Amino acid sequence: MALIKTFYWKNNKFYILNQLLLPHKIEYICCSNCSEVEKAIKKMNVRGAPAIAVAAAFGVVLASIEKKFKSSKDIKNYLFKAIQKLSRTRPTAVNLFWVLERMKNVISKYSDINTIKNKLEREAGEIYDEDIRTNKKIGDNGEKLLNKNSVVLTHCNTGSLATAGYGTALGIIRSAHRVRKIKKVLVSETRPYLQGSRLTAWELKQEKIPYNLITDNMAGYLMRSTKIDAVIVGADRIAKNGDTANKIGTYSLSVLAKYHNIPFYVAAPESTIDPKILNGEQIKIENRSSDEVVYINGKAIAPVGTVALHPGFDVTPAENINAIITENGVYRPDEISRNFS
Amino acid sequence: MALIKTFYWKNNKFYILNQLLLPHKIEYICCSNCSEVEKAIKKMNVRGAPAIAVAAAFGVVLASIEKKFKSSKDIKNYLFKAIQKLSRTRPTAVNLFWVLERMKNVISKYSDINTIKNKLEREAGEIYDEDIRTNKKIGDNGEKLLNKNSVVLTHCNTGSLATAGYGTALGIIRSAHRVRKIKKVLVSETRPYLQGSRLTAWELKQEKIPYNLITDNMAGYLMRSTKIDAVIVGADRIAKNGDTANKIGTYSLSVLAKYHNIPFYVAAPESTIDPKILNGEQIKIENRSSDEVVYINGKAIAPVGTVALHPGFDVTPAENINAIITENGVYRPDEISRNFS
Repeated sequence: MALIKTFYWKNNKFYILNQLLLPHKIEYICCSNCSEVEKAIKKMNVRGAPAIAVAAAFGVVLASIEKKFKSSKDIKNYLFKAIQKLSRTRPTAVNLFWVLERMKNVISKYSDINTIKNKLEREAGEIYDEDIRTNKKIGDNGEKLLNKNSVVLTHCNTGSLATAGYGTALGIIRSAHRVRKIKKVLVSETRPYLQGSRLTAWELKQEKIPYNLITDNMAGYLMRSTKIDAVIVGADRIAKNGDTANKIGTYSLSVLAKYHNIPFYVAAPESTIDPKILNGEQIKIENRSSDEVVYINGKAIAPVGTVALHPGFDVTPAENINAIITENGVYRPDEISRNFS
Repeated sequence: MALIKTFYWKNNKFYILNQLLLPHKIEYICCSNCSEVEKAIKKMNVRGAPAIAVAAAFGVVLASIEKKFKSSKDIKNYLFKAIQKLSRTRPTAVNLFWVLERMKNVISKYSDINTIKNKLEREAGEIYDEDIRTNKKIGDNGEKLLNKNSVVLTHCNTGSLATAGYGTALGIIRSAHRVRKIKKVLVSETRPYLQGSRLTAWELKQEKIPYNLITDNMAGYLMRSTKIDAVIVGADRIAKNGDTANKIGTYSLSVLAKYHNIPFYVAAPESTIDPKILNGEQIKIENRSSDEVVYINGKAIAPVGTVALHPGFDVTPAENINAIITENGVYRPDEISRNFS
């Protein structure tokens, strides 16, 4: 576990670690209402599919206590609207929608205003705890796929900071490190948001897991010229056929891994599997702003007027994935459709 | 031709455009002696295989006039030492060594001090002019490989700024744009030095050639989801078997292009071909400092103490290259060994 929490709930306020300031500054955003959580998700102060979902759950809790309600109908209407707004923050990761569905079910189930409030807070806490338990199981299941002395390449941040704690792909690396299987982690910096260099490197450094930072474009060269034993990434949405949406750059890595016969693993809680989506083509890819590519730390890296493309995610087809690792086991991508519907 | 020159010679001084300040500032470094040129090459104020070579030629000219010489032996010894220093600035691109060899031959051929000086200046000017002529021929030869309405992806900067003028891979794009074949150029930003976003985007903007900037890790996704007609890159050294060293990230692009059946072209003057090097494994890859990855505009993007790998180049095997385009024609990589020895 990282020493610093991604977020915490205290005295009816939800505190979100501002990940845009990492690794240079540890600063929490104090949210006392739901729209502050909504803003933090949109602005990517908090990111990572499971982390976004947990934050949204606490957003709903805040919505339930941020004003006085006259009636059961009043609170329910208000909360459903809040949920709708939260659901519009980020489109690609499915975990957000799954968690909001759980919160909706709680709201629908009860009619007393105070009961709704209490049950929502309990549900959010449960979602939080579950996420950590789930991640640890993913870590245990995935660790078994690695041999001693492994060099593992990972993309983006899938650690404590991307979840309630521990992490998915990075959770596997944590678990493998504990049993002394990790020789080194290669951290791709993950342009444009640099989640690899800012967040993953920060987590690895805290836990003294050996790592080297690389630029995203070095992966192929290193796969060809050095020993890399596995590529492990997270997921934002897994379609029924095993196609997986994840941070932009994941697909390129999957092609490179395949070309060099390096196993390519996806690690995710089963809540990431979306059997309503038949294949990757149906996954909505979020297009974010050009400025997020053109500016680094507030300074332009390209001429004024340059327009950058900025798909936030890409889809890795099932055929490029050796295994999908969840809290309940290790699946071949073609086993997803049989096990989840 | 770009409106702004990469470098120029005036009143016995050599002016080098400081490419580290682009695209925000147009500023020339005034070199009045050879070691200033040496420093500018090392620090990458000037970069690009052909540009480095031309700059080095003028560095030798400066060495010949920066002090008084007593005898023919005196000047020759001094110049050979200067050439040795210049040859140690960057190891991967072969053009530098080829140009220094030409300058050496001039020095060996003459004995009168003033004749040596005059002939060196003339030779450097000839190398400069030749480079531009060569690039235009590369542009003409390469343009023919493209169809109307082409979307072309290019990596790093291979334009006016990487040469005496016009450019190699970017020269082809210029020529193709002139005959209205270019729909759009996709410019990969080229971490860590961002030659794509800082330099290539700047050249394209000046000439109003339509482009979009992308992060290096988007290439695979865009190859799969959109129409890309060709990848065109430059070269720093081409081995006898066609294996080609170029900016880090080129190899990854070649694998991705192959996977998506997109033609992958290398554009370079024939001086880049080094028949003494039998294959890519023999090409020395320059390892540069970790800080060039960790810091962007003077600010760290990773935790203090992070060590980044930084191979400056990689090698693309001949089998991933559809054609090598030079001033004299278009070759299949396997034709290199027959034509150059």
